[in-house]
Amino acid sequence: MPSREANGGEGERDPESFTLKSPLLASSFRSGINSTSQVAIVGANVCPIESLDYEIAENVFFKQDWRSREKLQIFQYTFVKWLLCFLVGGILGLIGFCSNIAVENIAGIKFVVTSNMMLMGRYGMAFLIFSVSNFVLTTFAAIITAFIAPVSAGSGIPEVKAYLNGVDAPGIFTLKTLFVKIVGSLTAVSGSLFIGKAGPMVHTGACIAAWLSQGGSRKYQLTWRWLRYFKNDRDRRDLVTSGSAAGIAAAFRAPVGGLLFALEEMASWWRSALIWRAFFTTAMVALVLRALIDVCESGKCGLFGKGGLIMFDISSSTVVYHLYDVPAVLLLGVVGGLLGSLYNFLLMKVLRIYSLINERGVFWKIFLACIVSIFTSCLLFGLPWLAACRLCPSDAGEACPTIGRSGAASLLGGTMRMTVSLCVILLELTNNLLLLPLMMLVLLVSKTVADAFNGNVYDLIMKAKGFPYLETHVEPYMRQLTVGDVVTGPLQLFNGIEKVKNVVHVLRTTRHNGFPVVDEPPISETPILYGLILRAHLVELLKKKVFLAEPVLTSIDAFEQISAEDFAKRSSGHIVDIDDIELTEAEMDMYIDLHPFTNASPYTVVETMSLGKALTLFRDVGLRHLLVIPKISSRWPVVGILTRHDFMEEHVLALRPNLATGRWKRLRLKLPRFLRIF
Amino acid sequence: MPSREANGGEGERDPESFTLKSPLLASSFRSGINSTSQVAIVGANVCPIESLDYEIAENVFFKQDWRSREKLQIFQYTFVKWLLCFLVGGILGLIGFCSNIAVENIAGIKFVVTSNMMLMGRYGMAFLIFSVSNFVLTTFAAIITAFIAPVSAGSGIPEVKAYLNGVDAPGIFTLKTLFVKIVGSLTAVSGSLFIGKAGPMVHTGACIAAWLSQGGSRKYQLTWRWLRYFKNDRDRRDLVTSGSAAGIAAAFRAPVGGLLFALEEMASWWRSALIWRAFFTTAMVALVLRALIDVCESGKCGLFGKGGLIMFDISSSTVVYHLYDVPAVLLLGVVGGLLGSLYNFLLMKVLRIYSLINERGVFWKIFLACIVSIFTSCLLFGLPWLAACRLCPSDAGEACPTIGRSGAASLLGGTMRMTVSLCVILLELTNNLLLLPLMMLVLLVSKTVADAFNGNVYDLIMKAKGFPYLETHVEPYMRQLTVGDVVTGPLQLFNGIEKVKNVVHVLRTTRHNGFPVVDEPPISETPILYGLILRAHLVELLKKKVFLAEPVLTSIDAFEQISAEDFAKRSSGHIVDIDDIELTEAEMDMYIDLHPFTNASPYTVVETMSLGKALTLFRDVGLRHLLVIPKISSRWPVVGILTRHDFMEEHVLALRPNLATGRWKRLRLKLPRFLRIF
Repeated sequence: MPSREANGGEGERDPESFTLKSPLLASSFRSGINSTSQVAIVGANVCPIESLDYEIAENVFFKQDWRSREKLQIFQYTFVKWLLCFLVGGILGLIGFCSNIAVENIAGIKFVVTSNMMLMGRYGMAFLIFSVSNFVLTTFAAIITAFIAPVSAGSGIPEVKAYLNGVDAPGIFTLKTLFVKIVGSLTAVSGSLFIGKAGPMVHTGACIAAWLSQGGSRKYQLTWRWLRYFKNDRDRRDLVTSGSAAGIAAAFRAPVGGLLFALEEMASWWRSALIWRAFFTTAMVALVLRALIDVCESGKCGLFGKGGLIMFDISSSTVVYHLYDVPAVLLLGVVGGLLGSLYNFLLMKVLRIYSLINERGVFWKIFLACIVSIFTSCLLFGLPWLAACRLCPSDAGEACPTIGRSGAASLLGGTMRMTVSLCVILLELTNNLLLLPLMMLVLLVSKTVADAFNGNVYDLIMKAKGFPYLETHVEPYMRQLTVGDVVTGPLQLFNGIEKVKNVVHVLRTTRHNGFPVVDEPPISETPILYGLILRAHLVELLKKKVFLAEPVLTSIDAFEQISAEDFAKRSSGHIVDIDDIELTEAEMDMYIDLHPFTNASPYTVVETMSLGKALTLFRDVGLRHLLVIPKISSRWPVVGILTRHDFMEEHVLALRPNLATGRWKRLRLKLPRFLRIF
Repeated sequence: MPSREANGGEGERDPESFTLKSPLLASSFRSGINSTSQVAIVGANVCPIESLDYEIAENVFFKQDWRSREKLQIFQYTFVKWLLCFLVGGILGLIGFCSNIAVENIAGIKFVVTSNMMLMGRYGMAFLIFSVSNFVLTTFAAIITAFIAPVSAGSGIPEVKAYLNGVDAPGIFTLKTLFVKIVGSLTAVSGSLFIGKAGPMVHTGACIAAWLSQGGSRKYQLTWRWLRYFKNDRDRRDLVTSGSAAGIAAAFRAPVGGLLFALEEMASWWRSALIWRAFFTTAMVALVLRALIDVCESGKCGLFGKGGLIMFDISSSTVVYHLYDVPAVLLLGVVGGLLGSLYNFLLMKVLRIYSLINERGVFWKIFLACIVSIFTSCLLFGLPWLAACRLCPSDAGEACPTIGRSGAASLLGGTMRMTVSLCVILLELTNNLLLLPLMMLVLLVSKTVADAFNGNVYDLIMKAKGFPYLETHVEPYMRQLTVGDVVTGPLQLFNGIEKVKNVVHVLRTTRHNGFPVVDEPPISETPILYGLILRAHLVELLKKKVFLAEPVLTSIDAFEQISAEDFAKRSSGHIVDIDDIELTEAEMDMYIDLHPFTNASPYTVVETMSLGKALTLFRDVGLRHLLVIPKISSRWPVVGILTRHDFMEEHVLALRPNLATGRWKRLRLKLPRFLRIF
């Protein structure tokens, strides 16, 4: 029975084997290397990815910093938190509005000219103008994307969602990305490419949020000292969540929908206070939009409002429906679900082709864009003659607009699987609450149907892009493995007082981001796990050259040149490389006292804990490193470190091939998806 | 500096003291007893409270159970999960509708008669009828509450919220409670007492959910085998969350609002999948209500719909507003916030008086109810003459209904502080989304203003009732204390193979619910923390008499008479008392092998971890017991156990009086509340 082999010496047959066999057995796997990739496709390029760290690193310096925080500073912190939400909301509302105007004017003019041509019967000319303008716009978008910021290609939602789950891809939140995202999506949409507003707006919102929270841009000399409290991943995560909520709010003018979208689809962590701030942000967006629309009603904004092809303005007479409509609606939901999953399936195929072409280099990308543009133009130009029959799907016994809108809802539901928020967004678009129960029904049915076939489109894309996304769900086989089984080696340790030479060597030869610090005699009677030190902090120490001539314990007063801020998290993706640090031979032979800089209370789990239970801890608390300690205390005080990559299916199955054929794996694969996602 | 004393030997001055001094220092506090009360006011009575346990207890039996789960069983599990949501939604919709009809008919008849009298000019008679009917109805409600289920007195929301936070009060979810809750609130409302619908409906929903999920009622022979998978606190928590969402949905006919209410106000833990199920439940409620209303439109339901005093039916012409309204709205928000916090303040005073009276015994309670009833009657009867000026608050430059409805929103916002959900509920009531940004603004302002003075009404009540509610927020002083400082003793341990006598003695003499199991020589070379065993499981073992004549390790095959189901969580508050178990002298001298029944991988933290960080773990993962292990591995392998009571402010301040006067405490107290809740 593979499953019992699987959890090796955990020994459900004999309790004693817990304390005696399992460590040995487990250690036989510990030499395995984690084979999961450390890179992912971000936008259109392959980048190295970093994990984010939501753990409170309790080293002496941070403790002192907290202790020294005065009333004023706590006030600053709270004030800035709200100010940032305010700014994110305001700026995003502004951007959303401007891009709308721009698009509606560009596209509007285009359509006006084209249709005039058509009215004059000069169809060829019309098509020429139409397709050429599209071609130019699209090519421009493709060029700036390819040459300035390839990261900003694509929807951006998967990247943001991965970030909120703890995966940081350098460059996704830079000003360059932001600029290209806005201009690019703007021109592409006016080039009548089928591009959703949601993705770009969400990414834009996240960019603004991240950019503001990481203390502005050092590069462009835009920084503010009050923002130093936000130099940690927790506060950034919260603000980025609010930002993505605001993105949806700006895209659909749906504040509550945006909020729910962020909660249901984007956020991996969530607090009541966070709901409130996100809500404040979306409210800001709504207010700004409202205000600007008031300004525009005087008609100063060119074609704005005439087109309305971007900002949906579905207004409907109140529709009353009765129980006998429900079956029709159910049917609709099923159909929508099927279409939705089919859409996702095709989408993945298309994306695969795209990525193949993208690998061929920049010019192919642009070429691809041009092809798509021309194709789209032909399609659009041909469509109107087919469009007539589009309005009313073959569905009996109900007012067409209603069902029609529900003929949108269920498809979206099938595609995105974010029932609740989608429902609210549609509500806020249609401004008709009597339809609510009907819509809920459609969305739920379509989601269920679609889930039976494949996952939500963002998760599919994230998987395809290779982001190590941590699911909340614990797979059955994870309960059969212990952390001791999956933890990989070789383990790199430091002593409490370590030779500079060793530190440099280890940092140069490994890519680990956290190292256990162990005190050995004479510092302590027995080997003691003192804590965990982060690579970033070690690099900082080497840069500051806080070295000792002799291996002695030093009091922290010896480190005036260092403050907690030196250990603050740098802006996303900004890493000081170890190789940039120059050290003399003499310095190499000196020592560092790591104690004051070590997180003295890292989270630990015993090696016999099941992988599933450890995942719960890892995911719920939001860790980057999880130390595994031995069951038998007399042994070496630390067994290994778990990172998010150690919870990935590929890794586990690489260590335990029998699982792939084992009962658990089979079970998991055979089950339709909707039996597994809870 | 108290703050430095506070974290005692944590020794930020000298790293070495981490490993040497701190344990000793900490142990000097370990003898302290946790003085926090283990009882709370549930409904109107004082009951003992239990903590819930969301940890996955990994003992051999559960592991075997998981291993033996077949595809079919996983399907059963998922199917039942959805079926339960379906049932909860349906039943609750039905109950909500019926109670509405009942109330509207009773109250309707009452009003018709009274107003007829008044039209005939016989005011005295009218008042008599009015007040007598009120009196009778109220007294009836008071009597059934006092004699059948005192637990169901009051709103019930605090109890449910506490339950979702992990505090279980026996009896809050029994059938009796449910019955009294429904009938009592029904009669009380028709007796024109000012009772919100929300509270009773939420409690009702939670009752139904809990009752269904705990496998029906053994007492009334209503059980179903498929429900055995739900005999754990995690699944019940999820279903109760859905239930409370459905409660709001039924009370206000606001499905999305109900969902948000559950997320924002009730739930302490939340998953994307949970949102979805809760949404499904509220959708069911909405559908059932819709269907029943269709049925009723033919006028078969007596006065239903004529009164409409319960089911709000605010319908308004579309109101357009502009920027210049915003100041007025802001002002309104501030006023609402002030009123709201004032209301809460007065409410607490009133509640205190009530509880004083309640202590006097049952008859005083009923007497109190009568007084209130008479008072209310007079008030209501007098009110119409004053009501005229109520409609339009003194507020410039806007359509009255708009502001008027926002004159409700901001007050509620000030009282309940659940901005987001409230906003959506109001939306769903008014069915007018153009007001959304305005409403959001009002609610946000009023919440901010109100938070500056006092907390949300439910939190206030929970505190007054003495529920040990775990906040997400980490107070500054918690970062200055280590878990070693607050952990209390004396610690009760068991050996891996323990004498029955000792087990019985410990269970009889202590009230702990979890005990560390330690293996000592000869079973292991050194003392090893094997795991944690729960009182409930020990009692089960004693009941089943799985004893050994000799202290030897036994293989689990020796325990055919026991299955995982014996360790399943009993229904809320159902505890087998140790004193009910009869053991002979011979049995007392036998042994139990605790290994197969011990959770072999409990969550542990090192004693030097800060209290704040431990709280994060405790709260995020949802623990009942958290083991504290020593820094120095050569010492005794476990320092103590943390429970939720050890994180309570009273306890910490009792151990560390200097904190009360210390800098941190002062800081915390002086800060306005809204600086602390994030």
